Amino acid sequence: LVSVLSSAIIVYRLPWTWKCSKLLMKFIHAGLNTIAMILAIVSMVAVFEFHNARNIPNMYSLHSWIGLTAVIFYSLQLFLGFAVFLLPFAPVPFRAALMPIHVYSGLTIFATVIATALMGITEKLIFSLKNPAYSTSPPEAMFVNFLGLLLVVFGALILWMASRSHWKRPPEENAKVLRPIGGTPESTEAESTMTDGSNADKSDLRINSEAARKQNLKLDEAGQRSTM
Amino acid sequence: LVSVLSSAIIVYRLPWTWKCSKLLMKFIHAGLNTIAMILAIVSMVAVFEFHNARNIPNMYSLHSWIGLTAVIFYSLQLFLGFAVFLLPFAPVPFRAALMPIHVYSGLTIFATVIATALMGITEKLIFSLKNPAYSTSPPEAMFVNFLGLLLVVFGALILWMASRSHWKRPPEENAKVLRPIGGTPESTEAESTMTDGSNADKSDLRINSEAARKQNLKLDEAGQRSTM
Repeated sequence: LVSVLSSAIIVYRLPWTWKCSKLLMKFIHAGLNTIAMILAIVSMVAVFEFHNARNIPNMYSLHSWIGLTAVIFYSLQLFLGFAVFLLPFAPVPFRAALMPIHVYSGLTIFATVIATALMGITEKLIFSLKNPAYSTSPPEAMFVNFLGLLLVVFGALILWMASRSHWKRPPEENAKVLRPIGGTPESTEAESTMTDGSNADKSDLRINSEAARKQNLKLDEAGQRSTM
Repeated sequence: LVSVLSSAIIVYRLPWTWKCSKLLMKFIHAGLNTIAMILAIVSMVAVFEFHNARNIPNMYSLHSWIGLTAVIFYSLQLFLGFAVFLLPFAPVPFRAALMPIHVYSGLTIFATVIATALMGITEKLIFSLKNPAYSTSPPEAMFVNFLGLLLVVFGALILWMASRSHWKRPPEENAKVLRPIGGTPESTEAESTMTDGSNADKSDLRINSEAARKQNLKLDEAGQRSTM
């Protein structure tokens, strides 16, 4: 689940996907997130059936509360993302306004899922390791602790990749060709909000005048509509 | 601990601190982080003494492993932040290069501390609630679960505040006065990296020419040195 979620998050940062059209990248992003959602539902059904079979109460732990909250927000995120960014009805300014929220929610849900996994691992180790107990540090406990630590490192790495503006997908080829001489291959307004509302600030290339910026915006809007 | 950490993170986003000088804000940030570090050390000593008094092994759980890792990285962050951003020896380009890493590390450590707290709460509820057991959902368990959920909401709120570029501290007054007519009150290079490497992309004010940008940079450098 975490690895599919991660792939969905960093798909816009992978150089090999930059050759794909924006629409194909969106489909990969949406597809991976749909797979992650299915995995989340399957695993939740498995947990409920496991609990019922063993007469363990459901939804009593903090792990379950935060996990369910994450899944609810994740399904909302998936539905809104599909309705606004994949279907061709939402106007560009609305997409641009929603994008920072979409990015923030996605990354926050991702971090919450990792925290939930860590709580789940903690619970499982306490409940399952009885003889020898978890507190006597048997090899199994050390191994799972190490995996938990790796999960944190992995999550931190994904958040690093997702928040670097210079690892962002370069703008569309056709947009580059269409730009006036005054314009630069800076990202479109809607795209620039993808990285947590950040521009490629390391870039020395800046738009030279307000007029050129507005002209670019129009072209970008046209370019974005063409990928819908 | 989490509230002091949060205050340290969002001090640059609070309008009432914008009236302070940059140096005072840095001191508040460093001071709050030092208090948080002291609280972390005191609480760790308390845990070790509690364990030793009750003959409970130390450092066996995933909670302890991730918690100790967070504290180690936090002390590194504090030491590096003090050496690079507070002492007047580090050159401005080095500060600017380190700032996105400092911001990313700070926010990642903050998220890891929250995850550690959630694991600690889970452990405590399992170990302490025996009669009635945690799994029977006594009122105490519900209350603590609710507090844990609030902790996640609180952490998400802080990360939202910290990652919004338009909630960023506006540039220094003197820098504004010193700017040429072509220049705009956009943030300095070093400051712009504070928000996870993002510029205020919503701003319609852009630097009009490369020459003006470079001139601004020089002025900003001078402005920054004056606050050292």
